[in-house]
Amino acid sequence: MSELRKDPIIDRWVIISTERGKRPNDYKDIMEEKRTQDCPLCEGKEKSTPPEIIAYREPGSRNDTPGWWVRVVPNKFPALGIEGEPLLQQHGIYQTMNGVGAHELIVESTKHEPGLDTQTEKQVEEVIWAWRDRSLDLRKDSRLKYIQIFKNTGPVAGASLEHTHSQLIATPLVPVDVIQELEGTREYSSRQGSCVFCDMIGQEIAERERIIYESSHFLSFNPFASRFPFETWILPKGHQHDFGQVEEEKVRDLAKVLRTTLRKISVMIKNIPYNMVLHTSPVNMREERHYHWHLEIMPRLTIMAGFELGTGYFINPTSPEVAAQALRETEEFYPLQDGSIKEVYRYV
Amino acid sequence: MSELRKDPIIDRWVIISTERGKRPNDYKDIMEEKRTQDCPLCEGKEKSTPPEIIAYREPGSRNDTPGWWVRVVPNKFPALGIEGEPLLQQHGIYQTMNGVGAHELIVESTKHEPGLDTQTEKQVEEVIWAWRDRSLDLRKDSRLKYIQIFKNTGPVAGASLEHTHSQLIATPLVPVDVIQELEGTREYSSRQGSCVFCDMIGQEIAERERIIYESSHFLSFNPFASRFPFETWILPKGHQHDFGQVEEEKVRDLAKVLRTTLRKISVMIKNIPYNMVLHTSPVNMREERHYHWHLEIMPRLTIMAGFELGTGYFINPTSPEVAAQALRETEEFYPLQDGSIKEVYRYV
Repeated sequence: MSELRKDPIIDRWVIISTERGKRPNDYKDIMEEKRTQDCPLCEGKEKSTPPEIIAYREPGSRNDTPGWWVRVVPNKFPALGIEGEPLLQQHGIYQTMNGVGAHELIVESTKHEPGLDTQTEKQVEEVIWAWRDRSLDLRKDSRLKYIQIFKNTGPVAGASLEHTHSQLIATPLVPVDVIQELEGTREYSSRQGSCVFCDMIGQEIAERERIIYESSHFLSFNPFASRFPFETWILPKGHQHDFGQVEEEKVRDLAKVLRTTLRKISVMIKNIPYNMVLHTSPVNMREERHYHWHLEIMPRLTIMAGFELGTGYFINPTSPEVAAQALRETEEFYPLQDGSIKEVYRYV
Repeated sequence: MSELRKDPIIDRWVIISTERGKRPNDYKDIMEEKRTQDCPLCEGKEKSTPPEIIAYREPGSRNDTPGWWVRVVPNKFPALGIEGEPLLQQHGIYQTMNGVGAHELIVESTKHEPGLDTQTEKQVEEVIWAWRDRSLDLRKDSRLKYIQIFKNTGPVAGASLEHTHSQLIATPLVPVDVIQELEGTREYSSRQGSCVFCDMIGQEIAERERIIYESSHFLSFNPFASRFPFETWILPKGHQHDFGQVEEEKVRDLAKVLRTTLRKISVMIKNIPYNMVLHTSPVNMREERHYHWHLEIMPRLTIMAGFELGTGYFINPTSPEVAAQALRETEEFYPLQDGSIKEVYRYV
């Protein structure tokens, strides 16, 4: 079983992962590591993954066979495992906790395509439903306190499988970055009497300098203090603390905004590596109603080096105003393999 | 001038860097970026850098000519600049500050070698003296609150120049990661009546499970909650909050411990990319005597992906106990180019 270990100085936990355990010699050839040709996520390869947890599939089709369009499976090398109790233990000045949690993989397409941006809007919507369904199911487990949904695209951004997928790790603790955001929003709310994310939306819509795309329910923009070039946040315009409460109409709208945003970013810079995270309020504890769930897309064109790792500060060589203008002006321009053009939208 | 921008939710600042400014189109070929063959840090190329700030050089040799062994120059593309006042400004809900600070480059060798590990012990000592001298000089500038010394080795770890060098960025604010460590040490100290780093040294020496190397004044070990495989901390065994106060005998001893540690890591995994940061107490503010300065070496064999960026937690596939044993058993074994062996030490 994996072990969670707390840094004795700050509230940062590390998962020492036995499932993913690497011996020192395993790193020697790490630079030459090749990705497997035999993709376990493609349609027809259902037996290559652990048995599916849920799948959206054609009526009558059997589990772990073709007929699905979105499939959720346990991660074959889970960072956290579902067995046991999250017991806090003291070892001298150090603390550990059993590595209790869940680690799931959401397969976003039957086809071996690298991105969510090339999926249909309907398919993106189905992926968002899978995120919500898993989020609602996992919170029934009272041992779990946070459900982190994220997506890695491209080897530089840590994707070890090319086939488009997102992941979910449920943790028995609220992670430090979420705690800091919760404290920040609570402090702002008690000082200003409003939600900092709602106020941000207000200022962004008023200034229009950093907006990429706006729909009825969502705003996609490059945040004022962007850490990364083309960092993009997607926020629901109405206040909602818990992603699990998202309504059907909003899911449909988010699919459009997310897909459009990803397409613009992917057209702007071909094969752009990025991470995406869904920040929402914790589960199985006091409701954090002042929070405001959102998506953060972090392109990985810069390297987090000594300065960033030493300070927690970032150096971003491209201002969000410049990034937003470029993304607003970018057409969703996808040539087909035969050279013809599939669709051209222009959102300027 | 660069601009510092504060995240409106948490106490995280971003440097929007104009000196390093990149237009969106600049990223298109970023994957194919080649490093220049013409190294500006080599001996004889002194005119390729801005004029030197200090250099340790032979008596009688002129500034910006050969005759030096350690040379400190301004970074040609500084993240922060020395002109102006650090004024905090409010833009609606957002805050900015002028990008006031310093960004210097410490050239660690006259020769084009990639690492500090292949330098002599005397040379490593001279580099540490340069860190201390610059740290003492810059704190005379009351606008500066923190002096972050760091080193990036290998392109994966963000080194854009191959020639061995470290960097220094002085900031007009205490960075968030340092604030968290200061709060953590203060809180521990008021609860336990002792320094958490001193207690950590005590427990590590008692358990001997994670130690790599121990000298009279320093302990090199893999911390209990290592974020990265082979993450290594080097701590002065005696309590000292401010690196600027380090004594001559300790500098000599640190040179030996740092060099030995880096050699073991570099022999263990050839061309290992890593970041190193020096954490010390802030300057020009209340003295943080409960703090304990130290070096953190972070090999970059894993990728910080969506989970890490979303939570602030880390997944480490190699436990520090396994890492430390491997490093203890690693000989400093450097074959010369003609195949003979330069030196062999064994610290088991």
